[in-house]
Amino acid sequence: MMNYDDFLSQAAAGMQESAIRRMGTILAQNRDLISFAPGYPAPETFPWADFSEIARELLNGSHASALQYGATRGFRPLLEMIAGIMETRGVTPAMDRLMVTTGSQQGLDLVARVLLDPGDVVLVELPSYTGAITAFRNVRAQMEGVPQESDGIDLGALDSIHARAVESGRRVRFLYVTPNFQNPTGLLMGLRKRQKLLEWAASRHVLIVEDDPYRELYFEDSASEADVRPMKADDSDGRVIYLSSFSKTLAPGFRVAWIDAPAPIAVKLEMAKQAGDLCTGVFDQRVVHECGRRGILERQLPILRAHYGKKRDVMVEAFRREPDIQLTWPDPRGGFFLWATLPAAIDADRLLDRAVRHGVVYVAGSAFFVNQHGGSQIRLSFSAPTHDHIREGVRRLAEAIREEFREREQAAPSARASTGF
Amino acid sequence: MMNYDDFLSQAAAGMQESAIRRMGTILAQNRDLISFAPGYPAPETFPWADFSEIARELLNGSHASALQYGATRGFRPLLEMIAGIMETRGVTPAMDRLMVTTGSQQGLDLVARVLLDPGDVVLVELPSYTGAITAFRNVRAQMEGVPQESDGIDLGALDSIHARAVESGRRVRFLYVTPNFQNPTGLLMGLRKRQKLLEWAASRHVLIVEDDPYRELYFEDSASEADVRPMKADDSDGRVIYLSSFSKTLAPGFRVAWIDAPAPIAVKLEMAKQAGDLCTGVFDQRVVHECGRRGILERQLPILRAHYGKKRDVMVEAFRREPDIQLTWPDPRGGFFLWATLPAAIDADRLLDRAVRHGVVYVAGSAFFVNQHGGSQIRLSFSAPTHDHIREGVRRLAEAIREEFREREQAAPSARASTGF
Repeated sequence: MMNYDDFLSQAAAGMQESAIRRMGTILAQNRDLISFAPGYPAPETFPWADFSEIARELLNGSHASALQYGATRGFRPLLEMIAGIMETRGVTPAMDRLMVTTGSQQGLDLVARVLLDPGDVVLVELPSYTGAITAFRNVRAQMEGVPQESDGIDLGALDSIHARAVESGRRVRFLYVTPNFQNPTGLLMGLRKRQKLLEWAASRHVLIVEDDPYRELYFEDSASEADVRPMKADDSDGRVIYLSSFSKTLAPGFRVAWIDAPAPIAVKLEMAKQAGDLCTGVFDQRVVHECGRRGILERQLPILRAHYGKKRDVMVEAFRREPDIQLTWPDPRGGFFLWATLPAAIDADRLLDRAVRHGVVYVAGSAFFVNQHGGSQIRLSFSAPTHDHIREGVRRLAEAIREEFREREQAAPSARASTGF
Repeated sequence: MMNYDDFLSQAAAGMQESAIRRMGTILAQNRDLISFAPGYPAPETFPWADFSEIARELLNGSHASALQYGATRGFRPLLEMIAGIMETRGVTPAMDRLMVTTGSQQGLDLVARVLLDPGDVVLVELPSYTGAITAFRNVRAQMEGVPQESDGIDLGALDSIHARAVESGRRVRFLYVTPNFQNPTGLLMGLRKRQKLLEWAASRHVLIVEDDPYRELYFEDSASEADVRPMKADDSDGRVIYLSSFSKTLAPGFRVAWIDAPAPIAVKLEMAKQAGDLCTGVFDQRVVHECGRRGILERQLPILRAHYGKKRDVMVEAFRREPDIQLTWPDPRGGFFLWATLPAAIDADRLLDRAVRHGVVYVAGSAFFVNQHGGSQIRLSFSAPTHDHIREGVRRLAEAIREEFREREQAAPSARASTGF
């Protein structure tokens, strides 16, 4: 019997399965579960008829290059379309800064490989997107978490944590942030804070990696185009690496996203991608390009804002009908997620088994923290389930929490007085 | 002005652009060139009508998951189909060993990340696939090249080179080989040599990474199913990591390939892929799966063998009509490539500019060597161009070589006698 541990790289030895992806496996095995776990877009919003028509045309035999290998940077007309999108977001575009990636996850992975050596420090929000954490960890970087306030990252804490890292002799390469409707908290960073963050990064000579998959999905009752202006738009000295995606606005089954990085870094990202997958699927890129060219993407955006805004309403209203479970959350103004805090003494990881038995699943908050916190928090995605499923899932979750209350009461009756229930 | 060198990882500092991909850029800029450079499949062989029909069905709105995120390991029915394919290749399949990858290039990249630490040694054939070399170099591994004989890698040289690496205190993690119709040489490794290689790897405690993209494309006049039996089929102790792909048998525009690795390594490859791109494009996977299920893949294979075999004939015959240019090559028994040696004193890199001026392009051999050799060799892909373009491209290349002869003669008339022309 071979011992493969002898053969693993140090990076592989430290690799861990993503909690969210693991949840996907649980789901695949249990079809009756209502899932608030993975942040999946709603397939009923996808422009199926348009996709079908575009596929028919691309595959009619007269587009030989549609199924061929393509340029590593991406399909040129798609890159030009992305330049136009960047312009609408307030960013002066430059073709030598842009590259198509196989989902934004690949962009994060390439950034990690191009910017990080083992032991380098990345500053991340507490909590932060677990896929980014994993990509950074896979190159053996060290993550330092920075708490968030209601309008985003805590600038005072950021500077202290940065200073401590530098004092300890480590190199801080970049700060990773998701200013718009962050995964998992749904928080929107204030515009003034974005400006201050840019100034801070310049003063401390660190780069900013700005991950922006949800920006188009602001809910029109509580946010607007002006609120989601990327930091990249005000990045006068080329300090921001910006990522965005078509996964949330068209469909994630086409793995098409992009990165806008300072040209000298973009060159290296391209080299890393060459060895990583040669090129993003050309057919996928062509479909996405056609969706832009034909105005389908533009037409989808208000539909999606209304769709996900309504689902947020349904979930929030459903929880309001269960006040006894004492759940709290910041109201999301866009995106896919409700970030909820359980009553003090309930552990989110432990509650999960019970929730699954009740037929509902979420992601326990600890997955999003690089400092072992988040034990009483849960991420609930309202994006994919139907209204009825959202209501039923909330009812099941409330039942699970009540059952947890009861069991704890029975196990330790004295706890009741001290914790207030 | 920012100095981005401060921010690059050590890996990024050493990254280089692939010669083949760079050639793609030259091509994109010059539409009149006849290209023998990238190893592109022939789009006229693609089953366009079938693809179109499958896309229409998958996108009719009743397959919600076809455009959703998917499992990192891959679409389960496709994995089961791949298990069946492995069985036809002589390998007892196991689901816990299989994973879909975003092209085989991703598989190579994941292998590099999971198995290699900086400074580790990878043994590669001389010459070898440049995309693999780049993936290994990007994790800062050291490549040691092993010469090939007409039936594949030189076993004596392999053992000496391995011994030298071990003596120098370095760790040799694996041997990378492409036994079937190697890129770039087109060589087919003998069956007996495959067996001996397995024994050697066991005796030296190294893994084997067996890259097998071309195995279905044997030319029936000179090779058969029996000749392409993978080493993985005789891998009794779980020493072989096997990669194959649908890029050459269906279409590369769908980025769908697979890896068959010992289960403990497959687990780590999956974790690396989670952070790498979450999952391979689900639509692409579904299309490929349908092509298998409907017998389209099976139907394509003899068509492709005949198609590429005929193109090989056309190229070989065209060169036979130009004996004065003194080109030599081993006859390819499958695959996409003719690996040609120029007359002794002509440098392939230098000839390239002249060839481009004459309207033809190839990949200079040096790109495939990890030891700076290959200066007089060129890789000619006959897979994509039409018969007429192959003939015209050969004519142009012959003209370029003749012009090179003439210029050298004028520059140094005395050289004539010494080099024989």
